[in-house]
Order: sequence, then structure tokens, then C-alpha cells
Amino acid sequence: MNVDLLLHNADHVVVGDGTALEHASVAITDGRIVAVGSDVDVHAHETVDLRGRLLMPGLINLHTHLPMTLLRGVAEEVDLQGFLERVWAEEARVMDAEGSYIGARLGALECLLGGTTTALDMYLHPEATHRGCVEVGLRHVIGPVFFSFPGPDGLSWPQRMDLAHRWPQVLADAGGPFVPFALMPHAAFTVNRENLTELAAFAREHGCLIHTHASENTKENDDTIAFSGARPVEVLDETGVLALRPVLAHAVRLSPSDQALVAERGASISHNPGSNLKLASGAADIVGYRGQGITVGLGTDGCSSSNDLDMFAVMRLAANLARLVREDPAAITSRDIVRAATLDGASALGMADRIGSIEVGKEADLVALRLDSPHLTPLREPHTAIVYAAGRSDVESVWVAGERVVAERRATRVDHAAVIRDAQERVDHE
Amino acid sequence: MNVDLLLHNADHVVVGDGTALEHASVAITDGRIVAVGSDVDVHAHETVDLRGRLLMPGLINLHTHLPMTLLRGVAEEVDLQGFLERVWAEEARVMDAEGSYIGARLGALECLLGGTTTALDMYLHPEATHRGCVEVGLRHVIGPVFFSFPGPDGLSWPQRMDLAHRWPQVLADAGGPFVPFALMPHAAFTVNRENLTELAAFAREHGCLIHTHASENTKENDDTIAFSGARPVEVLDETGVLALRPVLAHAVRLSPSDQALVAERGASISHNPGSNLKLASGAADIVGYRGQGITVGLGTDGCSSSNDLDMFAVMRLAANLARLVREDPAAITSRDIVRAATLDGASALGMADRIGSIEVGKEADLVALRLDSPHLTPLREPHTAIVYAAGRSDVESVWVAGERVVAERRATRVDHAAVIRDAQERVDHE
Repeated sequence: MNVDLLLHNADHVVVGDGTALEHASVAITDGRIVAVGSDVDVHAHETVDLRGRLLMPGLINLHTHLPMTLLRGVAEEVDLQGFLERVWAEEARVMDAEGSYIGARLGALECLLGGTTTALDMYLHPEATHRGCVEVGLRHVIGPVFFSFPGPDGLSWPQRMDLAHRWPQVLADAGGPFVPFALMPHAAFTVNRENLTELAAFAREHGCLIHTHASENTKENDDTIAFSGARPVEVLDETGVLALRPVLAHAVRLSPSDQALVAERGASISHNPGSNLKLASGAADIVGYRGQGITVGLGTDGCSSSNDLDMFAVMRLAANLARLVREDPAAITSRDIVRAATLDGASALGMADRIGSIEVGKEADLVALRLDSPHLTPLREPHTAIVYAAGRSDVESVWVAGERVVAERRATRVDHAAVIRDAQERVDHE
Repeated sequence: MNVDLLLHNADHVVVGDGTALEHASVAITDGRIVAVGSDVDVHAHETVDLRGRLLMPGLINLHTHLPMTLLRGVAEEVDLQGFLERVWAEEARVMDAEGSYIGARLGALECLLGGTTTALDMYLHPEATHRGCVEVGLRHVIGPVFFSFPGPDGLSWPQRMDLAHRWPQVLADAGGPFVPFALMPHAAFTVNRENLTELAAFAREHGCLIHTHASENTKENDDTIAFSGARPVEVLDETGVLALRPVLAHAVRLSPSDQALVAERGASISHNPGSNLKLASGAADIVGYRGQGITVGLGTDGCSSSNDLDMFAVMRLAANLARLVREDPAAITSRDIVRAATLDGASALGMADRIGSIEVGKEADLVALRLDSPHLTPLREPHTAIVYAAGRSDVESVWVAGERVVAERRATRVDHAAVIRDAQERVDHE
């Protein structure tokens, strides 16, 4: 068999579904995986030697706000509400389309260098944000964002709906690897029932993925009851949103009945432990959620609440936090944590047939880690090493849909120094 | 003024006491800091340009077991007691003096590459362990370890006391930067009251630093009550140990009266949140401890419970965990977390006059971080950047007592590949 690319003889291939292979290779043609195993016998146009490396699926950051990299560190020692007050004021001041584009490029670069190949992003100026991320090479899921009031970007509801109608063309014009058509109502305390109902109908008609914040902290639950007369998950259900299997960001403060509703409707949860702890929102009981059959992926949230996009740090924190919450050192395995950051994230996005694991037929979103560092010596079991010892700096190469977007720890599509300089200049001129 | 070394014009100099300078330089002679500021005017034998860098004190890992790097990943999904059962069996089997030496070199290398310049270590075969760490260039605090039963190393009590008498000579023979004469009774459930009393008398006579485990989890408290008739802190107090201001590792499960005793006697606590969460020991309330005037430093614990020696990860986790425990996003500042990992650690070791901050007269234990990465852009406040965005891979240069032991992210005293290969071969021959 002739193939485009052979990733040859990795010490470990972590599949993403909880299994791993030793001394295995992966063959890729037209951006898709065509063979995986210890005995891949192909003629490759290009071969990359992965001896001394671990190959794993690209990480999926299931909740972030990439342009907020520019706002890194602007809101320290505040809770969610104090954070929003501070950040929305900054956004209205400085985050126009150009700022979003510049911040998106910086965020996408940070993602790729840290082994994240797909991000579920939510931000103002989504066209500019998407364009920036696609240019850097990230698989970037975003869509129009909705508030029932003007919001930091000042748009009216009809303007937001107009962008929703145009979004498939925006995606087509931007190019980049496949992503679903997504709609992003901010939250049930910022979008009213009538608007949520309209969005649900639109999403049902167009087959959209919905992403929204839900039950991040107890105050948000209270605010939603004041604004819409019910808890966030209840409002989402009553407006038809929950039945569309949305990705719910945070979901820290779900009541037992909220959890049962989420499970019954098949919605997914993005767990963002770094942000949840930093803002003192609380600790989501992901072991309990998983036990009810809810799909749980992992995310970083935006850089003014987390303050970076390090999915390795998130994996380790999620593993540790689950042990604390459940008072059980076996609360969740490293295999399940890696799966949450890869295949379960893909399932939440409705993309488990395309990405999230290293299997024949899937698109080649892959990360190679160097293993020749002291902190990865000895390496007894690869999932444990990924969660409890590895870090973003071990990422050496990254492929998205078969394209090598990071090589030798440097992005291939953009100049690091220029992306960083543009961001710094933007901040300096605030 | 003529000086040996000028670290010139760092973008930020984080002092360690909660303050920071911009565009400042540090001058060093005979391993000590002789000038700090924006207007340092000296003639230097060697100058290192730190534009685009952040200079901070070397991190102090206040509780670890460095040779256990070789046991990384051997005990997953177990609590403290399950961990000890598993690890002590492995240690009896493979951790002889040679194994400890090899593991210590690997651990010391990992420390330095991650910005840790001082470690409070506790391990079997402390002579061999110390020799390995000193060779790599770490400031390494260790001493004889004590059990009232033979322990994994099979030594009798008289053999342990004999080593204690010889320890000052062991330190002198090993060379290396100054460290205190330390004694390390394992815990109040493994060393009986008579032996603890003997150690306290010896330590008082010789001015020793004492380091021991205390109240890591509730089972340990119960075991100590069964073994010695009182809670760990009470036993340490009644035997005279607590009055000697020991460093207590973990201290997760202190009662209010335990806390009052620790505060009154001036003992310090090493907080190891990564290990505590992984073993589901619980979450120490360090904000409460600090409020009572207890000095709290940070540590990683050994690599079979944490599973690496990453003090940047520990700083971030400690900051986040305090917010969760106190349900307060302002529970502890980034300034206080950096201070815990530097100056407060030095205070716990009785070395605050020598290390822990960048001040004239102190020994030059320093770390330079590169700032030209996406995840450190923009950098609004340096302590926040260190705790919430930086990581071990940002460490570019490290000095211990003025000697550059890491340059361009490589150790200067040992060959990385050889240290790693020796460790891997040792593990392979287990």
C-alpha cells in the first residue's frame, strides 16, 4: 500500500479509547488514518521516526475563549460575577474584531504547542476569531454567540441571527479542517426563554451543535432563577435546547434532578477544573456524572480565569480533584482521564466518527511526545505517564487532519515571534 | 565594584518576599548576592543578559523522596496505606545504596531542570542519596532516617544512631552547598515514643533540623493512636520533638488542638497537594494554618505518589486548592504562593538568612524563566504568571550558590542521557 505519511515505530501508541500499543506505527493518506499496528507494511511518501516518542490523539479542549489570551491575568482573586464585571468592561474597550483575531492566533498557537488539536471556542467576533485559529492550523469549533441584551460586542438579536444564517458560508470561506455548524447562546441567565426557544428551533432545522454555559456556580443558578424562573438545566430543557444534546460548560452546581435531566437528554458536560477552582465556583462531581452515563470532556476555559490553555494540567487536576471529591484514590483511572480529553470530547462534539482516537478511518489529529526527559523516566504505563508526569513541553510534533502543524516544538504555519509580538503590541496599545 | 557574575537587566526580578522589580540586575560574588536593583553598577567577570527573562529565587521542595523517581508509577489508585505496602516491598527488593544513588541523580536532575534548587529529602541510604544529589548540583537537605523496626533498609536502631553521629562528616565529605544537619524519624506510627525522645535529645544537643511525616490521612491518625496512644502531633510534642520546630510533612488531618500546638511550638508544615489528592488523603487547610501563624512551604512528595517533581504544578494546585477549601477566590494570593515555595520554605529549614529570596547577603540560588512563549503573553503581573501560567519548561538557567547548574535548559554537571540511561537500566534489571 502507498501512503502519504508513516509515523514509524512509536514506543507507545495511546489509542484514546483506554487502550495502548507498544512499538507501533500509524499510516496516513489524504489526512486520514489508513493503518495502525506493529506490522504496518506500507510504502510511504514521507516517514517520521517516532522511536523514543509516545503518539496519542490530539487533545480536545471542550471549553475555551481563545481571544481572551489577550486578557490573561486581568481578573485575579474574583469569583465568576466579579470576573464577568471586570472582563466584559475590558472586552467592550479593547476586543474588537481585530483584537479577537490577534488573540485567537495567540491562543491557537498555545493550543497546538501544548498538544491540543481541537478547541470548542466561544467568543465575540467569531468570524475574526475563526479566521485567526484556522490560519494557525487548529481545528476550531465556534459559532455565533448570543445574548438577549447587546453584550460586550453591541450586536442586536437580529444581527446575531443574521450571522447564524451566514455561518455555514463563513466556515466554507475560512477553509480549515471540518468542524460542525455551532451556535453559542451565552447562558440561561443572559439569553431569555423566547430567544432560547428560537435558537433551539433554528438548531434543530440546521443540525447545529449548541454550546452554552450552565450552572457554573451557585450564584449563576440563583441569577437564572431570577431571570427565567428556573434552574439553568431546567430552562434549557423547557426551551428545547437540552434535547439537542448541547455541550454544557462547567455544570459544577447541578442538582440531582439536573443531573438526571442531562443524562436523559444525552447532553454532554465540559469540565473545567482549573477555572472552577480559581474562581471558587466549586468542584464538579464528574465521577458521579459519568456514573449516570453523561459524557464528560475537559476544558481550560478562557485565559483570564485559568490562566493558560494547558490541557495536560487540566488532565492532572481533573484526576486529582475527582479523588478529593469522592474521597477515593481509585475514583477515576488515568485511562478514563485521557479518554475524557480525547474520545469523550469528540463524542460531545458529535465528531467521534472523525476524531478523538487513533483508529483506521479517522482524521489524523495526532500528538507525539518526546520521552527522553527525567520526568518521564521510567515510564511504566503510558496513560499514567500522560496524566501524572507529562506536560505541554513534552509535545514535539502535532498533526491536524494529517498536516504537521507543529514540528520540533515550533508551529509550521506561523512565525511564533510575530504572533507574540502582535499580541503584545495590541495589549500595549490598550 | 568588581563581581564574579552579573545577571543583567531581567524584565522582572521576583524577590521571593512578595515584591518584584522591573528591569533589574543581580550581582554575585563568591556565590552570594552583593547587589540587586535597576542601577547596579559593577564590573563583572561574567555577564548573562536576562532581557526577556524573569529572575526568581530557586524553588524549595519541602518534602520529597528523590530516589523514588525509580518507582514512578508503581502504585496507582491506592491510598497511603496501600501505597506503603506496595512501595516498601519494592524498596526492600530493589532500592539498595546503588539504586538510591542512581535514583537520586535522576531526581536531582529533574529538580534542577524544573527550577527547584533546594530539596528537603527523606530516603533510605541517605549517604548514597546525598552523594548523587550533590554531584548533580542540588542543594540537598537529608539525614539519617529512623524506624523503630528494621524498615525496608533492614537497619537496627543502633546502626541508625551510629549514622546520626557520623552525619556531619558525611556532609563534609560530600561537599556541596551548605545544608543543615538533619534527622528524619519516619513518623509517629513507625518510631516509638522512647526512640522519638532519644532523637529529640540528640537533635537538641547537636542543633539538628527534624523532618517527619505527620497526620497525612485519618488512618495514619488512627494508627498512631493505636501505636503510641495519642495523635501524631501530640506524640511529637510529648516526646520533645515538636518544640524543636520540625518540618511536618503533609499535616492534612490536624485537629484544631493539633493546629494550636503546631503554631505554639513554631513547627512548620510542608504542604504536598499533588500527593494528598492522588492518594485521596484530603486537602490541608493551609489558609487556616497560615492564619494561625504557622509557616507553610510546598513540596511534591516522592514520585510514586505524585508522580513528578514539578513545583510549578504544585504552586498552581496549592493556589487552586486553597480557593476550593475556603470557597473564596481570594483565599490566597499568587504572591503568597510564590513566597511559600521560596522564602517560607527557607524559613521552615531554618535557612531564611541564607536562601529563599533575592536579597543582598544571601546565597545565589536563582532561576531564570524565558518569557517568549505564547502561554506567558501577555504578562501583566509576575507572581500571577509564575503560579497560573508558567511551568517547568520555562526554566532556562539555574544557579545554586552562584554556580550555573542549568544553562539553556541542560544541566551543566552531568550528561542527561547518561543519568536517564542509568536509571532506565536499573529499572529494567529489577
